[in-house]
Amino acid sequence: MGIIDGKTICQVALVVKDLDKTVEEYAKLFGVPKPEAFRVPEESVAHTQFKGAPSKTRARLAVFDLGQVVLEITEPDEEPSSWKDFLEKNGDGIHHIAFMTDDRDAAVKYFEKNDMPVRHYGEYEGGNYTVFDSKEKLGTFVQVKYEPKK
Amino acid sequence: MGIIDGKTICQVALVVKDLDKTVEEYAKLFGVPKPEAFRVPEESVAHTQFKGAPSKTRARLAVFDLGQVVLEITEPDEEPSSWKDFLEKNGDGIHHIAFMTDDRDAAVKYFEKNDMPVRHYGEYEGGNYTVFDSKEKLGTFVQVKYEPKK
Repeated sequence: MGIIDGKTICQVALVVKDLDKTVEEYAKLFGVPKPEAFRVPEESVAHTQFKGAPSKTRARLAVFDLGQVVLEITEPDEEPSSWKDFLEKNGDGIHHIAFMTDDRDAAVKYFEKNDMPVRHYGEYEGGNYTVFDSKEKLGTFVQVKYEPKK
Repeated sequence: MGIIDGKTICQVALVVKDLDKTVEEYAKLFGVPKPEAFRVPEESVAHTQFKGAPSKTRARLAVFDLGQVVLEITEPDEEPSSWKDFLEKNGDGIHHIAFMTDDRDAAVKYFEKNDMPVRHYGEYEGGNYTVFDSKEKLGTFVQVKYEPKK
């Protein structure tokens, strides 16, 4: 058993310049209503970090339900974030794929030991997410989501 | 109802320079055996086209089972292909997300009408796939897979 069960994939995440325009295109393609956009919680709640430094990013997001996975679409703001950095380097594209974990500490230890340091971290109601700098080894960033059992 | 049911997402496709190295990393991360690599069928079978012209590409692929979706990893060869073009422009990264369709003709018509022309086409035993030039509108290439009922 590895550090991540591949079957827990839960998210494909796209970064784009213009959230509203992209969301409109997917809603049309899928024939579903446009999902409501929301923002990353403010810094006091999200504790967002990019490359180890706190960030005030309040990027905008919208999410389409695709079954086992969601398509998360993010439009960065001007504050430092993994999304902004990716967009500036690559233009619109898929930023990461995300998996659930039951043991965040073990996941962080594994990625760090394998030269994939923490790139971006943030919290939301009910959980947290960690994006690892895995592009060189895994071809894309990988995110690990942890939601403590109540 | 749109032209594609988002719930039929079936594939996240990564393009990389070194298939064996990347496959090794994912196998380790997931704790599963390395899937066997295979090649795109030869031109007489695959009828591969890139931007409307036949291509002899025999790109190498390997596939991880992630539940509803597979992670398809492709290493292009020197023949023209959407994968080679993407790799040269972007380096390793996610090339497309794929959805099943019951009506390929309707899908092609929709994408073409919405300024997303066919970019790459190919056949495999039991079906065919069409990649559309949708990066500008959908942030990534979208692939539609069609497998005629027997």
